[in-house]
Amino acid sequence: MNLDELKQIFSPEDITTEPSALETYGRDWTKHFTPAPSAIVFPRKTPQVQELVKWARKNKVALVPSGGRTGLSAAAFATNHEVVVSFEKMNRVLDFNAIDETVTCQPGVVTEALQNYVKAQGYYFPVDFAARGSSQIGGNVATNAGGIKVIRYGLMRNWVAGLTVVTGSGDTLSLNRGLVKNATGYDFRQLFIGSEGTLGFITEVTLKVTRMPKDLTVFVFGVPELEAVMNIYEAFKKNFPIMAYEMFTDLALQYVTNQQGIERPFETKTPYYVLLELEKDSEETFEKAMEIFESCSEAGWIEDAAVSQDSQQAQNLWRLREDITEATSYKQPYKNDVSVLISKVPQFLTEMTNIIEQQHPDFEVVWFGHIGDGNLHINILKPDNLSSEEFVKRCKSVDEIMFTMIENLGGSISAEHGVGLTKKPFLQHTKSAQEIEYMRQVKRVFDPDGIMNPGKVF
Amino acid sequence: MNLDELKQIFSPEDITTEPSALETYGRDWTKHFTPAPSAIVFPRKTPQVQELVKWARKNKVALVPSGGRTGLSAAAFATNHEVVVSFEKMNRVLDFNAIDETVTCQPGVVTEALQNYVKAQGYYFPVDFAARGSSQIGGNVATNAGGIKVIRYGLMRNWVAGLTVVTGSGDTLSLNRGLVKNATGYDFRQLFIGSEGTLGFITEVTLKVTRMPKDLTVFVFGVPELEAVMNIYEAFKKNFPIMAYEMFTDLALQYVTNQQGIERPFETKTPYYVLLELEKDSEETFEKAMEIFESCSEAGWIEDAAVSQDSQQAQNLWRLREDITEATSYKQPYKNDVSVLISKVPQFLTEMTNIIEQQHPDFEVVWFGHIGDGNLHINILKPDNLSSEEFVKRCKSVDEIMFTMIENLGGSISAEHGVGLTKKPFLQHTKSAQEIEYMRQVKRVFDPDGIMNPGKVF
Repeated sequence: MNLDELKQIFSPEDITTEPSALETYGRDWTKHFTPAPSAIVFPRKTPQVQELVKWARKNKVALVPSGGRTGLSAAAFATNHEVVVSFEKMNRVLDFNAIDETVTCQPGVVTEALQNYVKAQGYYFPVDFAARGSSQIGGNVATNAGGIKVIRYGLMRNWVAGLTVVTGSGDTLSLNRGLVKNATGYDFRQLFIGSEGTLGFITEVTLKVTRMPKDLTVFVFGVPELEAVMNIYEAFKKNFPIMAYEMFTDLALQYVTNQQGIERPFETKTPYYVLLELEKDSEETFEKAMEIFESCSEAGWIEDAAVSQDSQQAQNLWRLREDITEATSYKQPYKNDVSVLISKVPQFLTEMTNIIEQQHPDFEVVWFGHIGDGNLHINILKPDNLSSEEFVKRCKSVDEIMFTMIENLGGSISAEHGVGLTKKPFLQHTKSAQEIEYMRQVKRVFDPDGIMNPGKVF
Repeated sequence: MNLDELKQIFSPEDITTEPSALETYGRDWTKHFTPAPSAIVFPRKTPQVQELVKWARKNKVALVPSGGRTGLSAAAFATNHEVVVSFEKMNRVLDFNAIDETVTCQPGVVTEALQNYVKAQGYYFPVDFAARGSSQIGGNVATNAGGIKVIRYGLMRNWVAGLTVVTGSGDTLSLNRGLVKNATGYDFRQLFIGSEGTLGFITEVTLKVTRMPKDLTVFVFGVPELEAVMNIYEAFKKNFPIMAYEMFTDLALQYVTNQQGIERPFETKTPYYVLLELEKDSEETFEKAMEIFESCSEAGWIEDAAVSQDSQQAQNLWRLREDITEATSYKQPYKNDVSVLISKVPQFLTEMTNIIEQQHPDFEVVWFGHIGDGNLHINILKPDNLSSEEFVKRCKSVDEIMFTMIENLGGSISAEHGVGLTKKPFLQHTKSAQEIEYMRQVKRVFDPDGIMNPGKVF
């Protein structure tokens, strides 16, 4: 590869082939792949990205975009001598407009930094998840990020008002430019959201913001049966704009209390727990919530409950859910992130639990997730006496069964983590062969030479 | 055209070449075009649509989709011997699921019928606009319909959880299947939304529904200045989930009061009026709203106000806005539907008003619209002494100036009415030549023979 030409586009401090940088920027959080990029570049503005793509086309060099590298599907992974394009130096907020309720920024702004910037203006940016401190806005758009507030605020897609992208042909497109209404043909902004860098790279983002939510109250309920988890959800959401509805099992709670030194929310042990967050915008709201809670208790759906009295207590209750990943990480969990229709969650969870118990009685399975979205995170913990290789092999056999079940239920093999390299072999369980073929053809329209993050998704 | 083959796909009552049917189904609400289809067919299920497309490909026959025919951009207009595909016999609701909060229906279900069906289940479908009694769900999706509740609930796009489509290649694709989260590559559902039938036809729709809003309170404010219209908007929306924020001028109000026999909301005359709808979910909310109202009055932004005490009064106040179209229709209005960033509405409106006053002092211009979305409906009324031809010719010269101004402001030449035939000559004011070329190429992927609603959009 002729790096001299690249050096005409990037100044020396914005291009590196240092082995430690190749290792760092060549990968995301995924294991099981080996990073092997040929160089890392750090563009600072859109025209530079455009020049880079034109150079890459001419030289048939593949490019891999890199954001906060918190991805869990190896979409931002360079395994094959690609040039990695890190957006971390394109990290400025460019504009804020209170009347339009929009903020415009470069793609390398860290999610939490954007949230804080917006908060300082008296507004709220609601896309939020555990990786907020490292993940970047560009990556959030490229993967259509989800997280813990989706049932109230929707996915990243809902918050993108405009995108500037450089396509694989080297064209810069300004898509939708922050407009609320724009009925002028195909909305390519939507096509780029969730495309994992395979059509082009995002170089500027205009996001919508919203009013700050008022007092947030967190309930944790002890729930005896899976069906009751869904019944409680229906009862509340018919009356309130619920902020979050998260489920976890007693096994998950055991890990959190043992490993993180957090106390149980109450003495009663139940197979399932749900965390419900509401906006307490008035005393009437709160009273109504208590009424619904009481009728759910009377129906036998809730055995015990805790409710936050202030924001510190709310935060503590959230840790019961948010610390699960950390609490189980020493068990080398094999992770999956899948979705089905919300109404099919009990059937899916019950059947999968039975199958895993029968076929792998030595496996501990920690289930948790954004159950209000039909989104489950499944963590199989490695038994101590099993080698990593044997464990992964047996987990992959669980994958096959699970993805087939998901296909039969009309679900998705990737709810919010994307496809990347990790889920690519299983895409046909969610998309038909015909639809995948249309995806290939659409990629060719935007990336005729196949240089944009090749080998990812399909 | 060999209709005999078509008759093997459709039973005799589902195909017609009657001149009155050709006239009726060959057009939408648009004037200035002449309907000239060769036949009308009425499919009843998806496989029939698929067979039809395959027949059309083989015979190089163009197809035009037809819903409630309420479009205002001639997207559902057959001017060139096309076969019109009316979806009015695919008008069944297929499924409702309270836990998933989804309703699945065929494309020919009328918007209002769907709204009522959902209401009977205790839920709410929020996409709403004046043509609700005739427009169909399929057309709403194909044009990404907007309307009066967009600032609270978003466009049709926000409510589509799944689509079944038949592409121009004759493939049936099941897109997203009702899932909340599905991060598996390009979201083609989004590409079909707003594509005006140019990629394929929608044969089944899964829509999200939501909880019913509580007591709706309507305010009408008399506002002395355009800037104040925006200031009031900002003050309220920072505190409340506003349901609607509509603006109209005193001229519009004069037409409504004179033609519709409706009384003014209050004696004070102001150049602008806004209609604000709030969900009065508690007394606290209402008190807070009154506080904001008072501070807006003190700031001189509001000169007078009316507030609804019950749903009948709320409905009456809504008529001040909703009856404008009917009240001005005898003046043969020349209509436009455009958008700019919300923050640029005052500049756009002021500059356009000045230009029209200077160049066409005999024109009355009735402005109104969904100002909270940056969306303005502009109706130029025909002076009595002007011929229709001369009037349209002069209005088209206004178009040229307006669309150039919109281009300079980064706005859209079609906010919510689509492109169709009417706005096609002006598309380049909103989309770059490069983006339009990508649109052409993407169309070729889904419709290689160019038989799906050809000549529309681009």
